[in-house]
Amino acid sequence: MMIVMKPTASEDEIAHVVARVESVGARAHISKGEEVTVIGAIGDREHVARLELEGAPGVAQVVPILKPYKLSSSQLRAGERSVFEIGGRRIGGEHFALIAGPCTVESRQQLFDTARAVKDGGASMLRGGAYKPRTSPYAFQGLGEAGLRLLAEAKLETGLPIVTELMDVRDIEAVIEVADVVQIGARNMQNYTLLSEVGRTGVPVLLKRGLSATLEELLLAAEYVLKEGNEQVMLCERGIRTFETAYRYTLDLMAVPVLKQLSHLPVVVDPSHAAGRRDLVGPLSLAAAAAGADGIIVEVHPNPEEAICDGPQALRADEFAEYAALVERAAQIAGKALSSA
Amino acid sequence: MMIVMKPTASEDEIAHVVARVESVGARAHISKGEEVTVIGAIGDREHVARLELEGAPGVAQVVPILKPYKLSSSQLRAGERSVFEIGGRRIGGEHFALIAGPCTVESRQQLFDTARAVKDGGASMLRGGAYKPRTSPYAFQGLGEAGLRLLAEAKLETGLPIVTELMDVRDIEAVIEVADVVQIGARNMQNYTLLSEVGRTGVPVLLKRGLSATLEELLLAAEYVLKEGNEQVMLCERGIRTFETAYRYTLDLMAVPVLKQLSHLPVVVDPSHAAGRRDLVGPLSLAAAAAGADGIIVEVHPNPEEAICDGPQALRADEFAEYAALVERAAQIAGKALSSA
Amino acid sequence: MMIVMKPTASEDEIAHVVARVESVGARAHISKGEEVTVIGAIGDREHVARLELEGAPGVAQVVPILKPYKLSSSQLRAGERSVFEIGGRRIGGEHFALIAGPCTVESRQQLFDTARAVKDGGASMLRGGAYKPRTSPYAFQGLGEAGLRLLAEAKLETGLPIVTELMDVRDIEAVIEVADVVQIGARNMQNYTLLSEVGRTGVPVLLKRGLSATLEELLLAAEYVLKEGNEQVMLCERGIRTFETAYRYTLDLMAVPVLKQLSHLPVVVDPSHAAGRRDLVGPLSLAAAAAGADGIIVEVHPNPEEAICDGPQALRADEFAEYAALVERAAQIAGKALSSA
Amino acid sequence: MMIVMKPTASEDEIAHVVARVESVGARAHISKGEEVTVIGAIGDREHVARLELEGAPGVAQVVPILKPYKLSSSQLRAGERSVFEIGGRRIGGEHFALIAGPCTVESRQQLFDTARAVKDGGASMLRGGAYKPRTSPYAFQGLGEAGLRLLAEAKLETGLPIVTELMDVRDIEAVIEVADVVQIGARNMQNYTLLSEVGRTGVPVLLKRGLSATLEELLLAAEYVLKEGNEQVMLCERGIRTFETAYRYTLDLMAVPVLKQLSHLPVVVDPSHAAGRRDLVGPLSLAAAAAGADGIIVEVHPNPEEAICDGPQALRADEFAEYAALVERAAQIAGKALSSA
Repeated sequence: MMIVMKPTASEDEIAHVVARVESVGARAHISKGEEVTVIGAIGDREHVARLELEGAPGVAQVVPILKPYKLSSSQLRAGERSVFEIGGRRIGGEHFALIAGPCTVESRQQLFDTARAVKDGGASMLRGGAYKPRTSPYAFQGLGEAGLRLLAEAKLETGLPIVTELMDVRDIEAVIEVADVVQIGARNMQNYTLLSEVGRTGVPVLLKRGLSATLEELLLAAEYVLKEGNEQVMLCERGIRTFETAYRYTLDLMAVPVLKQLSHLPVVVDPSHAAGRRDLVGPLSLAAAAAGADGIIVEVHPNPEEAICDGPQALRADEFAEYAALVERAAQIAGKALSSA
Repeated sequence: MMIVMKPTASEDEIAHVVARVESVGARAHISKGEEVTVIGAIGDREHVARLELEGAPGVAQVVPILKPYKLSSSQLRAGERSVFEIGGRRIGGEHFALIAGPCTVESRQQLFDTARAVKDGGASMLRGGAYKPRTSPYAFQGLGEAGLRLLAEAKLETGLPIVTELMDVRDIEAVIEVADVVQIGARNMQNYTLLSEVGRTGVPVLLKRGLSATLEELLLAAEYVLKEGNEQVMLCERGIRTFETAYRYTLDLMAVPVLKQLSHLPVVVDPSHAAGRRDLVGPLSLAAAAAGADGIIVEVHPNPEEAICDGPQALRADEFAEYAALVERAAQIAGKALSSA
Repeated sequence: MMIVMKPTASEDEIAHVVARVESVGARAHISKGEEVTVIGAIGDREHVARLELEGAPGVAQVVPILKPYKLSSSQLRAGERSVFEIGGRRIGGEHFALIAGPCTVESRQQLFDTARAVKDGGASMLRGGAYKPRTSPYAFQGLGEAGLRLLAEAKLETGLPIVTELMDVRDIEAVIEVADVVQIGARNMQNYTLLSEVGRTGVPVLLKRGLSATLEELLLAAEYVLKEGNEQVMLCERGIRTFETAYRYTLDLMAVPVLKQLSHLPVVVDPSHAAGRRDLVGPLSLAAAAAGADGIIVEVHPNPEEAICDGPQALRADEFAEYAALVERAAQIAGKALSSA
Repeated sequence: MMIVMKPTASEDEIAHVVARVESVGARAHISKGEEVTVIGAIGDREHVARLELEGAPGVAQVVPILKPYKLSSSQLRAGERSVFEIGGRRIGGEHFALIAGPCTVESRQQLFDTARAVKDGGASMLRGGAYKPRTSPYAFQGLGEAGLRLLAEAKLETGLPIVTELMDVRDIEAVIEVADVVQIGARNMQNYTLLSEVGRTGVPVLLKRGLSATLEELLLAAEYVLKEGNEQVMLCERGIRTFETAYRYTLDLMAVPVLKQLSHLPVVVDPSHAAGRRDLVGPLSLAAAAAGADGIIVEVHPNPEEAICDGPQALRADEFAEYAALVERAAQIAGKALSSA
């Protein structure tokens, strides 16, 4: 970290900053220029993170040099990309995972129809929600444990690994009994309690970016999981909130190549929630795959008009195979192969 | 809710929408114009919230008419504003509450010095954090239960009601033993588990707006608390995330008069976290009070340069009385009186 | 347009709205529901655009039904897409145009080296700036007319049509003498004088989306050109401003399929300005082509390290052919063929 | 400017950056730390502005130290604030200007009724638009020269200085014949042609912040005017574009104290366009004045229901005096006196 002092900073103010740097166990390196003095704070990330010098007397600017995350950083693995194997499917590196299924588990029929269709179409994993975070307390909140039981059955039936969301730390035992991947939703990206507890389970995590979270905040959220010893975190871009009202969220596909530079972790894109409309899911999926995403998580329903939740954004189960074939072609341009058992 | 059909919508598509409306227990009222057909869905909020017709075949647009929240709505009280009495201090209506104290409880000395200064300066309540949500897992996370005990002592000493944050549902018993007001932080605004549990305690809640939450989402989050029977929710604007990089967050003071129109609940402003810089806290506090806020929550420290957390944004304890006097003048312009014991 | 009245609206307020509707030459159609009255305003777009009823007494909400643009609307051509032929190259429909060249014309050598490389690599048109809008008055503003002369020479040499920016209405004669396509930059998207004048020239226009312009505003800006009789407008997404600071702008690729639904006009993507970094240009270009863009406009320089302007985002001329081949593959997935002479 | 090199930067890359710095006439100061090398570029702003080293090989980060603007900078006047005298009214420092009048000039009657009301209520200047920038080409575009003539008459009648907008550089002579202050609208904030030409006239300028312009961009736009020798520029905050849809724009009142720190120029707030609704204009005006704004520009109409343009946001002329008295009280809290003849 470098602390740029104001041109008007006094010797006392400079000395005070130096003292602060040393008080957290870091070393200070002073460089006096003609116009300004710059103080380098050299020490480990934990120490330097405790310095809060913005706005201190005489300080013009604080410039971080080391990234505040380390376990998720691409530097950790010297540029090598993480590849996870989950229930026999790989994700990361040259492996592209297509995760598909209903927004929410509604019934055995609905889940099984979808599961078979996505398996036949070449999906790598099955998604499905048993617990649904809803903006309104008056909206449908998911089937809960009954939903988990149906997911377990669908896994037995199809062999597809299961991706499902955890919202409440008290449901953790029930969820990880079924889940091959625990999804942390966008609204919970900074629910630090949940992140730490999921970190302790060791079950792979799909961590969705918050609606207005920066990439740095996403990586710091991943850090909460990683520091508990759980190395299998997938980052998921699912649309950010901007001024544009023509669509629900703005899918930030630049996040894909940038996250891949900053971090060794696989990057997944969720085009369904970003768009909120079925007709946009296809073009956005192709774009995500061509941009180098390591996977896509997409909503599919046998009969979207009857869906309890998010029907308008679900792909039709009987069109999934055609969709998957196009996505595979786009992933190939980016040098990836679709992962299946 | 009105569903505007596309000019090209078929009779079948219209009939399908009508059937959906009726399937959730609402009634459909069809109005055929020359260019478009409009279908009104009449029923209670819970029913209509389950309709998800955006993007359905033939549907051009879905226009909500009733607000999706009801317990927080100003219609509930026919325009009358809620006034809460908390430890002898009032907030809401003509009563302006000045809530002040340290960002985080660091030590008995620091807390007591601050508490006495803000009490002498005319503060209505004392704030202080024992549990701190931090973006980085490597940053200081608060004193925890030891912090709560110090807050309890400070309350005994000064008589000021205590405002402190709850992050983890498992700490709820410990927190409400001390707190007169439970603060839910911006990152937890959509932690629905936490909201419902706090709702069940009946302890007054200060609910901070998420960094990119719309006012409607804030009111729906409040609804999660209110529907458990807890009527004492205060809404808190604390800055939103925008493109501007000249400051930490953009304080959205337009939220103050708009929330007061939409809801009967008191509206509080946090200028400290929005600005992140002490020198902006004064002007923003005056602005908030003049705009009609029902209260301000502000950070104060006896020696900000030595603060563990957020020192640069803390007002100096020895300047608090002067600050409070100016804020009181601004609140008077908006027709309010400072609330003290 | 539908005007939804408040539940509390009086008969007088309803009558007043009806009178306003009729005063601009539209007809009012009243529909009284149990809770609210809805007034439809039926008339042409010009009439209805003059109604400004938001916030009028008794009015709860004004819901536009017709889009406020018409010449750019996809309804104008019943879903058929516009295809333009510019100097023998086609854009739109199944034709994908790759527009490449330097950010700014610096010298004959630099321009010719670039022009030959992009022609050999398969580019459809040559871009190059003679007039540069710069945020700072102290930055390089372009070669002006000397730059235009070099572009004319490069066109003679390579046969590539020229795309160049117009900033000042007083330069219009000089620019259209050379330009096959006049570019209107993002900062000028709402410079209505410039739009109307360019509309009168009849020269094809590449209209860049403003940094915080909605798609509707972009289409209304196009409407300023179209209504002067100039039918050849290409829309260009080049990144929007969001809270994210990890990159210069956020490329909004969802705009591609959405603009193609709303409008018959071709949609072009500029990955260079959005990213500001060479290493992101490749992935974003593939994503744009896979998402169905009708073209890409990209910056190329023979020696980016020496570029006067925006060097860090320029592709290297000697890597262009490889880049173009990949983009062509991505465009094919979306059903398009690269357009060349 | 400081250039922070990557830990992996080679000696060649460092030498290349040094060469670039020297090639624009600046000096390079190298400081090698244990982890990274930092290169200071010392020279004047014009030189350094031409360096575009972001993304150059081996460069991790470019940190500006000097602000890129200078004539608008508060450093220029060593913290002293600019005070302008316009037609006998002062703005800046301790002088608060209340600028009021109709959005657009509609008729002699409308303009004169408004002008008299705002003069009687204590306004400092009269605003009124003759040329209106409109998002839609189908909306009313203003009375043009006829509007200017009416403004000239209103000035004669009331003695109030006139603030009116210039959109097209070709109207400059006609506008400055009437205008005491030339307004540059938000959409034209980066119309550099217009800024430079207005700079040459020497007439005071009210420069509105673009909808998504940073404060630095606003100050750089002011720089375009100032560098032509025109020292009288007022900066105007009028709302920025954010994700919030509950109101038209988000009024960014934090811009007021921050601009006053960064610049010596007066800062004006436009609450009318930000809110778009009359009922918010009062609270926002009080907030702006209490935050330390040097003036407010507000829309007033004798009969808002009949206004051609922006009626819903206009204050009623017969309520202006009461409004002005409250604003004056709020300005007093911030240490200012209302400026009148």
